[in-house]
Amino acid sequence: TVGVTGAFANDDIMKNQKDPANWALQLGNYAGQRYSTLDQITRDNVKNLRPVWQFSTGVLRGHEGGPIVVGDTMYISTPFPNTVYALDLNDNGRIKWKYEPRQDSSVIPVMCCDTVTRGVAVAGNKLFLGQADNTLVALDTETGKVLWSAKNGDASKGETLTAAPLVVKDKVYVGISGGEFGVRGHLTAYDINSGKMVWRAFSTGPDKDVMIDPQKTMMLGKPIGEPDLGIKTWPADQWKIGGGTTWGWYTYDPELNLIYYGTGNPGTWNPAQRAVDKDRAKSDNKWSMTIFARDADTGQAKWVFQKTPFDEWDYDGVNENILADVTIGGAKRKALINFDRNGFAYTIDRTNGELLVAQKYDPSVNWASEIDMKTGRPKVNDKYSTFAQGEDHNTTGVCPAALGSKDQQPASYSPESGLLYVPTNHICMDYEPFKVEYSAGQPYVGATLSMYPAPDSHGGMGNFIAWDPSAGKIVWSKPERFAVWSGALSTKGGVGFYGTLEGYLKAFDLKDGKDLYNFKTSSGIIGNVNTYMHKGKQYIAVLSGVGGWAGIGLAAGLTGEQEGLGAVGAHKALGEYTQLGGTLTVFALPDNQ
Amino acid sequence: TVGVTGAFANDDIMKNQKDPANWALQLGNYAGQRYSTLDQITRDNVKNLRPVWQFSTGVLRGHEGGPIVVGDTMYISTPFPNTVYALDLNDNGRIKWKYEPRQDSSVIPVMCCDTVTRGVAVAGNKLFLGQADNTLVALDTETGKVLWSAKNGDASKGETLTAAPLVVKDKVYVGISGGEFGVRGHLTAYDINSGKMVWRAFSTGPDKDVMIDPQKTMMLGKPIGEPDLGIKTWPADQWKIGGGTTWGWYTYDPELNLIYYGTGNPGTWNPAQRAVDKDRAKSDNKWSMTIFARDADTGQAKWVFQKTPFDEWDYDGVNENILADVTIGGAKRKALINFDRNGFAYTIDRTNGELLVAQKYDPSVNWASEIDMKTGRPKVNDKYSTFAQGEDHNTTGVCPAALGSKDQQPASYSPESGLLYVPTNHICMDYEPFKVEYSAGQPYVGATLSMYPAPDSHGGMGNFIAWDPSAGKIVWSKPERFAVWSGALSTKGGVGFYGTLEGYLKAFDLKDGKDLYNFKTSSGIIGNVNTYMHKGKQYIAVLSGVGGWAGIGLAAGLTGEQEGLGAVGAHKALGEYTQLGGTLTVFALPDNQ
Ligand SMILES: O=C(O)c1cc(C(=O)O)c2c(n1)C(=O)C(=O)c1cc(C(=O)O)[nH]c1-2
Ligand SMILES: O=C(O)c1cc(C(=O)O)c2c(n1)C(=O)C(=O)c1cc(C(=O)O)[nH]c1-2
Repeated sequence: TVGVTGAFANDDIMKNQKDPANWALQLGNYAGQRYSTLDQITRDNVKNLRPVWQFSTGVLRGHEGGPIVVGDTMYISTPFPNTVYALDLNDNGRIKWKYEPRQDSSVIPVMCCDTVTRGVAVAGNKLFLGQADNTLVALDTETGKVLWSAKNGDASKGETLTAAPLVVKDKVYVGISGGEFGVRGHLTAYDINSGKMVWRAFSTGPDKDVMIDPQKTMMLGKPIGEPDLGIKTWPADQWKIGGGTTWGWYTYDPELNLIYYGTGNPGTWNPAQRAVDKDRAKSDNKWSMTIFARDADTGQAKWVFQKTPFDEWDYDGVNENILADVTIGGAKRKALINFDRNGFAYTIDRTNGELLVAQKYDPSVNWASEIDMKTGRPKVNDKYSTFAQGEDHNTTGVCPAALGSKDQQPASYSPESGLLYVPTNHICMDYEPFKVEYSAGQPYVGATLSMYPAPDSHGGMGNFIAWDPSAGKIVWSKPERFAVWSGALSTKGGVGFYGTLEGYLKAFDLKDGKDLYNFKTSSGIIGNVNTYMHKGKQYIAVLSGVGGWAGIGLAAGLTGEQEGLGAVGAHKALGEYTQLGGTLTVFALPDNQ
Repeated sequence: TVGVTGAFANDDIMKNQKDPANWALQLGNYAGQRYSTLDQITRDNVKNLRPVWQFSTGVLRGHEGGPIVVGDTMYISTPFPNTVYALDLNDNGRIKWKYEPRQDSSVIPVMCCDTVTRGVAVAGNKLFLGQADNTLVALDTETGKVLWSAKNGDASKGETLTAAPLVVKDKVYVGISGGEFGVRGHLTAYDINSGKMVWRAFSTGPDKDVMIDPQKTMMLGKPIGEPDLGIKTWPADQWKIGGGTTWGWYTYDPELNLIYYGTGNPGTWNPAQRAVDKDRAKSDNKWSMTIFARDADTGQAKWVFQKTPFDEWDYDGVNENILADVTIGGAKRKALINFDRNGFAYTIDRTNGELLVAQKYDPSVNWASEIDMKTGRPKVNDKYSTFAQGEDHNTTGVCPAALGSKDQQPASYSPESGLLYVPTNHICMDYEPFKVEYSAGQPYVGATLSMYPAPDSHGGMGNFIAWDPSAGKIVWSKPERFAVWSGALSTKGGVGFYGTLEGYLKAFDLKDGKDLYNFKTSSGIIGNVNTYMHKGKQYIAVLSGVGGWAGIGLAAGLTGEQEGLGAVGAHKALGEYTQLGGTLTVFALPDNQ
């Protein structure tokens, strides 16, 4: 790749993402579609796929994200200590350079959901890595040398960094984690050349901090109007420790010049502590659980959409916002599709935030009956309201579990089929909130959870589904034994891919989901399946390495049913199928095919 | 596998090793041949080989040994903490049970050459594991439950356990490591049913301890005659801290009822401290560096053969003794073939210890010009004698290096071709001995080493060779970039296998060594390639996970040229090719072949 000397790195990214030989961004392209026009691997020949080379990262625990490929080089990163490798595709992954940050391991205990990172960003001659310890580094893509580094947070307050950065023009956007530690979330833009902070948009607090203009920033098709909802929808100063972290995925529309991302759960998990006058109606806890569309340059909010006002279930609203043009009621809409943790899939007009479709993408979802299309609000079922049921009461049978109907695992959208291919969870929970006091750097959770497979279903804890974003309907659904925690890929060859927690890489027919190929890799897959072309041949690449929140029991050696914020019990059988690992596997067809 | 209730577990092993569907012993059979009569994978179709499933062991660092397969179950073990897995071959390696010993990690610093184990032994319904901390455990093969455990040594004295146990009849033989800590070596037999020690044969000291009868135990075809050479060939009490550890491989001839194994280097590495009257002639340091043939029942030594009397280079004599019937001078001989660290390959009459052939198997060997066929003694070249050159003098250009022309990596013998297929090292060294004092549990080395590729050669540090044990000649030789630290396999299909430190599994034509297939696995291979059949299909299985002495730089994070007892410098480029790992890979042909 040719170094970019001017200010605009995304000329380079735009070029790279157009050439399907590359896998230029974590989500495949700025639209977050995880789709490739490569078509050498087809529904007919994919059965002959096989690993062609592998690379152990030298690190165990959860490997999220996936390989970035630009030209002859592949870039991968590992869980803590966040080692980055540049691998030579001309020599079976020989190491061109290795960057191994020296990070204080004291950050590990404040990472809520395993020591994951969701990968690096490459733009021109720079590679960007968000380290667990909140250091954002820019590395030279040729040498791995540090060009600059910036401190984006403070681990002693429970702040960490797991999200993949996104580069647009001369800025790199970085999120923050720590919703379970009372961290006040923000998205921050740094200058890619100097490493200087350009702006920081908080998720809670006064409009100025949130970079909202109540007269201009849209909500449901019109200006918000009322100022400082980021303060008023919270009791007293609760917004200062109110979460809304930004540890998910970021997408970008170059024409609209808007970036999209979501904010996480409000803190604490005990809703009573976040209620204004004990009144749910007054307590949206804005702007937690909100999709933000921001001007990519100024950071100013163009529109907002809060999916789960006053969260009572830890349904972080951070999942990827996939940009696609979708026909709804006969009209082509510039849409954004979001599979929220809360179990509803939203199709939204990405120009202005207007809600177009909102339907359950898992039939077991029961905490709300539907989304009111006028207000965008869920109709909450009091039986599953942990606020209505009250503190120190165990609300049982809530679906989905806190892991959501989908968590960090990104979906894929095929512009050909117009469908989304979605790795989902099929897990329910019991949730008992309790009063908790805030102390900086200490867990600020305030609920005890148990999780288990969705009752009266197939017994498994996952489904892999195809979704129609216009109709808001499941097209087909494949049951899986465990939560599907790996990002999906769809390709022009008519074949899609995802990984399973047992470690299988699976290829399926986009038409009907039929299994076309599977291979049991060394460890559970929570990474995202990517594809690229090298010397005229198509490859599939994925990281294995079980972990993440679903695999936290294995990753952190926890065995108590309610440990790992409640996730351990449900997935305890995982240890019969797989163990910790950390390996990249590259697949291809035999040469004669 | 059917449980053995009677005393003789080797009825079961004998049966298992005869069925090529199993890989019943670490070395394939009692004769240590690492040969299989399976022939589905041939020199013609092996190019279509590919991984079919994998299993991450959850442990990093050097993975030696290999999978044992009996019936539908595969058993593997990991480096420290020596986790054992029973994997279900009917379900892509689903975990039937896992045994995870709780070992004190204080043993790690006293393991000289990485935290390796060379694998488990299975006999009847029992599995035997030698833990790093010197605990020998017997596990139930069905459940993984501990049946009994015995303490074979004391880590606080520098004693550890890395060797694979061997079971014969009602006994399991266990070795000990710690030659670099002044440990006095021994081989110990335990009753497989009770775990009680039956006998212990020391490598040094009085004949009684060594279980030698000078009137009966043969040396070079006649009785030793002189008593207590295990004392007399040492200065004062030096034999008590004199090494001769037994960390290599053990083989067995059921007809002769003899077991064979070798002893390691004498301690310290500074020869001056082991010289009687400063006279090499008086200082054999017996019975270090010695092949022992012992009665499998009583432990009594039938014959002995010391390969490197008065070692001055750390040429541990522990390499595997492969039993094969070989034609020499027109006569069929019951032979034993040993590729010693010292660079000579010995063909010996295994009935009585008579020396038949002794030739260099690496042309670079220079410390001795030849082996005197009468005395069995090397003719040492004073230029490379670290004793002649003296304490605090750096003797340079010694070939082979301390790692030997071959180290723990076991060779393979094909009864069809009559040849041995040998993974070898091609490394030389500088060696500077210095005075060292013994202190229990502290390193007792007394020499500083540097290692580098054999000069004036192909630049690489390994060769894979075919060897004619009758003629004592290299038949063909393939250069390798790094030491070949993986055990070889030969098969009736005309194809052989080994792994490389870069991580390649390689298949070669037994005829000429030509590369027929290679696959870059996740991490460097120092495990041994095994084969088995399941449901009528032949599989190849190997552990990846770089480490061992050659890979100690990567494994232990050492970077100083002379660290890792001198091994780090030579292999520092390894980090460009591979990183730490720990994965089992199972290969097979596509179903239509
Ligand atoms: O609130 C937060 O700041 C925060 C951070 C993270 C993270 O950074 O990994 C997760 C979550 N929350 C979370 O709710 C969650 O379900 C989750 C899953 C995972 C994962 O990697 O598997 N991380 C996180
Ligand atoms: O003297 C000893 O007791 C002893 C033990 C070991 C071991 O147990 O691994 C090795 C050695 N020596 C040794 O000399 C050596 O070359 C060696 C290589 C390895 C290995 O696993 O790669 N172990 C050992």
